[in-house]
Amino acid sequence: MKIAVAQNNYHIGNFQSNFQKMKIAIERAKANKADLVLFSELSVCGYPPRDFLEFDDFISRCEEVIQKIAALTEGIAVIAGCPARNPRIEGKDLFNSAYFIENKEVKTVVHKALLPTYDVFDEYRYFEPNREFHVVHFQGKKIALTVCEDIWNVGNDNPLYTLCPMDEIIKELPDFIVNISASPFDYNQTENRLRVLRANAERYRLPIFYVNHVGAQTELIFDGGSYVMNAKGKVFDELSYFKEDYREYILEEIIESENTLHHDKMPVLSKIEKIHDALVLGIEDYFRKLDFQKAILGLSGGIDSAVTMALAVKALGKENVMSVLLPSEYSSQHSIDDSVELCKRIGSSYDLISIKETYQAYLETMQPVFTGTEFNIAEENIQARIRGNILMAYSNKFKYILLNTSNKSEAAVGYGTLYGDMCGGLSVLGDVYKTQVYELAAYTNREKEIIPKNIIDKAPSAELRPNQKDSDSLPDYAVLDEVLFQYIEQRQGPKELVKMGFEKTLVDRVLKLVNQNEFKRYQTPPVLRVSPKAFGMGRRMPIVGRYLS
Amino acid sequence: MKIAVAQNNYHIGNFQSNFQKMKIAIERAKANKADLVLFSELSVCGYPPRDFLEFDDFISRCEEVIQKIAALTEGIAVIAGCPARNPRIEGKDLFNSAYFIENKEVKTVVHKALLPTYDVFDEYRYFEPNREFHVVHFQGKKIALTVCEDIWNVGNDNPLYTLCPMDEIIKELPDFIVNISASPFDYNQTENRLRVLRANAERYRLPIFYVNHVGAQTELIFDGGSYVMNAKGKVFDELSYFKEDYREYILEEIIESENTLHHDKMPVLSKIEKIHDALVLGIEDYFRKLDFQKAILGLSGGIDSAVTMALAVKALGKENVMSVLLPSEYSSQHSIDDSVELCKRIGSSYDLISIKETYQAYLETMQPVFTGTEFNIAEENIQARIRGNILMAYSNKFKYILLNTSNKSEAAVGYGTLYGDMCGGLSVLGDVYKTQVYELAAYTNREKEIIPKNIIDKAPSAELRPNQKDSDSLPDYAVLDEVLFQYIEQRQGPKELVKMGFEKTLVDRVLKLVNQNEFKRYQTPPVLRVSPKAFGMGRRMPIVGRYLS
Repeated sequence: MKIAVAQNNYHIGNFQSNFQKMKIAIERAKANKADLVLFSELSVCGYPPRDFLEFDDFISRCEEVIQKIAALTEGIAVIAGCPARNPRIEGKDLFNSAYFIENKEVKTVVHKALLPTYDVFDEYRYFEPNREFHVVHFQGKKIALTVCEDIWNVGNDNPLYTLCPMDEIIKELPDFIVNISASPFDYNQTENRLRVLRANAERYRLPIFYVNHVGAQTELIFDGGSYVMNAKGKVFDELSYFKEDYREYILEEIIESENTLHHDKMPVLSKIEKIHDALVLGIEDYFRKLDFQKAILGLSGGIDSAVTMALAVKALGKENVMSVLLPSEYSSQHSIDDSVELCKRIGSSYDLISIKETYQAYLETMQPVFTGTEFNIAEENIQARIRGNILMAYSNKFKYILLNTSNKSEAAVGYGTLYGDMCGGLSVLGDVYKTQVYELAAYTNREKEIIPKNIIDKAPSAELRPNQKDSDSLPDYAVLDEVLFQYIEQRQGPKELVKMGFEKTLVDRVLKLVNQNEFKRYQTPPVLRVSPKAFGMGRRMPIVGRYLS
Repeated sequence: MKIAVAQNNYHIGNFQSNFQKMKIAIERAKANKADLVLFSELSVCGYPPRDFLEFDDFISRCEEVIQKIAALTEGIAVIAGCPARNPRIEGKDLFNSAYFIENKEVKTVVHKALLPTYDVFDEYRYFEPNREFHVVHFQGKKIALTVCEDIWNVGNDNPLYTLCPMDEIIKELPDFIVNISASPFDYNQTENRLRVLRANAERYRLPIFYVNHVGAQTELIFDGGSYVMNAKGKVFDELSYFKEDYREYILEEIIESENTLHHDKMPVLSKIEKIHDALVLGIEDYFRKLDFQKAILGLSGGIDSAVTMALAVKALGKENVMSVLLPSEYSSQHSIDDSVELCKRIGSSYDLISIKETYQAYLETMQPVFTGTEFNIAEENIQARIRGNILMAYSNKFKYILLNTSNKSEAAVGYGTLYGDMCGGLSVLGDVYKTQVYELAAYTNREKEIIPKNIIDKAPSAELRPNQKDSDSLPDYAVLDEVLFQYIEQRQGPKELVKMGFEKTLVDRVLKLVNQNEFKRYQTPPVLRVSPKAFGMGRRMPIVGRYLS
């Protein structure tokens, strides 16, 4: 039996484009005499469709695509992901399903049983869980057809569900497992995925075809990396990361295989390489799927904007990235020089626009109101907001998307100006701690120095008042980032943090800053997610709470 | 048996304040020789605690409060809402539970079975559903103790769940139902609630004590309105709306009661009165719970800012609401005059700050870049963003919270400037359509003309270019709002809308505007929710989608 694995980059709600990609794969598979083509979870509509699922019209369009796919399946079978209506009146109206289509007919529809509802996932918001488990019969073989999370309850210390779907399906003695997934990237995900697939292969002694989605959907980046694994838990093959791929396999060869075959050929990416490639794909897909070409950003002379620019250039091409230098009276000459040097090295355009006059105009306008008050955060923020206004003026005039350059450390503690440097259509580094931004800079410079050394070496500063340094207001980033990681990613509380050896006053101060600044993060751009816990849809906090704040 | 119903305004994570309120009620009930005191769902920590629930420290603090409550229960019983740990390794780590505490001891903990996971609710994100159902024995009576949603699966056309907890509990022949709730307000909720309680009373022939939460938690407004209903489905009593309340009942009187007793005495609020009172509570609690006193807002001379101001004055007092008039060269004299008149009538402070000079400074600064281009949305938005910057400068200098004045119609179609008039800590009217804003204005003026007639009568305009009118860019609000309501609240698609009689070109245009402007709404302040479908946490849409856009 020849099985084709199609790892495509879908676009949510873009039925035309999604169908086109599936059609091309089906035709290629037919030409190569494949028996079965596998597509990823909710491939028909893209993942996650979110509240579009609540529209009957949206579901009807999904069903139309299934019919169009069915029309292509003469002499071939297809497994495609698509929502299915729940015929029972009780329960949620939909299932998250795998359609098994053969010879112009939907032969069976298998529903997902385990509905991830944590972090960025909201599946029980939409879907009824499956409660009946059967294999799919095809050409004398029995397929254990599963959807994503359904194989993730195996081999866990803390299983999220009381049910294990494969424990049910195995009773019908399947020959192999197919798992269609939309499993978003984070820097630990490759290892987690491999662990889960191995646990399944070993528990059920079956080969697995794991088909993942690739491509970014706003904040979520799907990294692809579909797997074919033999019954001994050895990786037979691994599809590309961060790009589309298509491969064909002979089932019998996998069943007979003893060892890891192709896997050794795949380069193993380091954590920072993965983050880098994910961010590049995240930027690229954001622009392409929104039909925008050009990015703009403010270059401050600091490392965050420099790294954001390098990533944007990688994603969009240097001709599509415009930088603006926006010095004030508090900007140092090196900020301008270093930014100009960066643009020259990359070969991309920049403008230099002084904000001095506009800032003076504000001060004069506010003079009757501010008279007798001390220079404080109000004057600092006016400058940051002038920059935001000017960058948005470029954006509105020339159809640029403004890239936000804030990092995760700043976003966490609220070290940034709402409507100022927190502006933008997309936050590139909002899930990257400051210490990781340095790693990204080093990675960018791995072959030659693209980001000037001076930008990397200087002490971080917002330059909103004379001689300002981040370290005036914040703990050292090395310590701050560690506390933030333990609190945000690891959900450690104040007691646990003190037990780890962090000073109590530091812990209290950092946690209070994080919790008090929820209101700022609420209004910031979507953040490209690369960690297991990013700000945005995966971290939902009350604004008007009073906990550690 | 004497039962006290305590309808309190809790604060998420503010364990000290929540416990204090519960303690006062318990002591009052003891003094009055009550046998049982009822508190609402998750009363210990406030509802919804959201991802705070993922912190072990947070749960430990909840448990500490339960112990402190238990210490108060000599000679009395208490039902309090609090998360409980799931002792099984499989499934989610917590339950959403009702603690039955008597004589210094937690006697039993009843878990919620139906976990709302739709609209603003995310309960399956945190909680494992209950699967075992028993009555609670107390003083020879059997209590059917349920948590919120557990009684909401009765009498529905489209039940969301496959289980009905009361159908199980009824087998043990309970004497009455207690339901502890945190059921947020929308303008249909009183009727829905009454319908559901009646359906339960009639199906099980039991009296019901329904205890709701009151108070606002960021965007969610809990309206109180706790009920006591007899076994015939007649309302025995109804607690206050939009404020705390405490009452005591003799169970036997309710059991023996024939008809509606106190209900007729309660004033029945009109839809617009409810919205008005909800918004006032929403503003009040946002400020009080964040420890802020003073609001600031920009007065444009239009109806949205006028109504926002009137609501803020109602909530915070006229001495705590500061208005700023920010005319540009495109502002008409009547905008200034009408705004000044409004402030004078209300007796609150205002400043008049011209943005002309600052705008000129921007134009001069941008001149090298904008040369040869036409005046367009870029110049319009610069003005709106200057206003945002100035209002935020007030906020930063003097510790005001900026109130956002955008209405739901504008937010829906993206008729507003991100980082300009879309700034603010809280969106007061973001769930109120323009046509409803007029109703709120009329309601505000019901006794005397507070909002000048001229503000109500003039054609809406953003005044960002000469002679601009909203109607240049948008359909008439009467039609627009109807399409928006059908699309947003009713989830009708393009085909259904055309079938209703709306023009196809209009429908396509409006739906496209709504879907394309998701990126703007993503970055706007939290919206006080008054409808069954508000922008924000209850409506989750992809930004990078391609559906009807």
